[in-house]
Amino acid sequence: MDVSTVNTLPYEDFVNIFGNVVEKCPLIVAAVWSSRPFLSLSTLHTAISEFIDALPDSGKEGILRCHPDLAGRDLQSGTLTPESLQEQAGAGMDALSSAEATRMARLNEEYKQRFGFPFVICARMNDKENILRQLSARCHNDCAVERARGIEEVKKICRLRLQAILADASNKL
Amino acid sequence: MDVSTVNTLPYEDFVNIFGNVVEKCPLIVAAVWSSRPFLSLSTLHTAISEFIDALPDSGKEGILRCHPDLAGRDLQSGTLTPESLQEQAGAGMDALSSAEATRMARLNEEYKQRFGFPFVICARMNDKENILRQLSARCHNDCAVERARGIEEVKKICRLRLQAILADASNKL
Repeated sequence: MDVSTVNTLPYEDFVNIFGNVVEKCPLIVAAVWSSRPFLSLSTLHTAISEFIDALPDSGKEGILRCHPDLAGRDLQSGTLTPESLQEQAGAGMDALSSAEATRMARLNEEYKQRFGFPFVICARMNDKENILRQLSARCHNDCAVERARGIEEVKKICRLRLQAILADASNKL
Repeated sequence: MDVSTVNTLPYEDFVNIFGNVVEKCPLIVAAVWSSRPFLSLSTLHTAISEFIDALPDSGKEGILRCHPDLAGRDLQSGTLTPESLQEQAGAGMDALSSAEATRMARLNEEYKQRFGFPFVICARMNDKENILRQLSARCHNDCAVERARGIEEVKKICRLRLQAILADASNKL
């Protein structure tokens, strides 16, 4: 699907196709539909990023709270979104050793207790070792630093999800 | 469930329970979790309303675009959220005559073409005749009037959904 096709989509199709480029936040793409036409995938991504940046801190934390834990209960219970499942599996989150799973669960809990939102990282850009290392390190940051860092990761995830949708021939309309 | 229990919920449970009080917009309740503790259901509703009011116009339109048409394709294909299904059925949207269904579809289309978002009304507070009458009349308003009117209806729907959750004994934790 190319961007000129994207620009012709009624909002219902647009939200159906792009609704999960920010995890469980279709409101965001439904909002940026107002900014069409988009010159390119990058301008669509920029519109999404600007909408997110203009939200109050609580809204940014709200976005983070819509994200599942890495190797958490949604992965175990099969309730991840298809996008998250693919990303987490790609980073090996579905094949942790028992010791790794225990460590991941403990660090996820520590992170959430400290910040009130989950650890978010672009799994496609990181492997298992790097994810565990960063989770451990980021537990010691300030809340504002982690809020901003998590949102930057959300934008990276969003860009890769957008690219995947536009590259998928089955999405040609 | 009483409000003191609500105030003890971790964000994951809070979002699981209240995530759809604004249709398909868990981001909003995930954001207002930051404002706990809530004195009452009303203060929770006020926090949600204030978050919505602070969004740019595109964000308000985004919320409206996350709502299904009344008696539309989601009702026909069985893909409404449980809350929407109950509300639309209660207002008789699942039992329109052929003539009523045709008129509703035509007016929904006219409304969406004009405004770029769907007609939103609190179905629990209206019957079939009233919904058709209002849809027909509201097609002639300005966009800004309809955006504001739709958002007021979203808040009414939200209040009734909140009340239903707090009244439901099976939600006692």
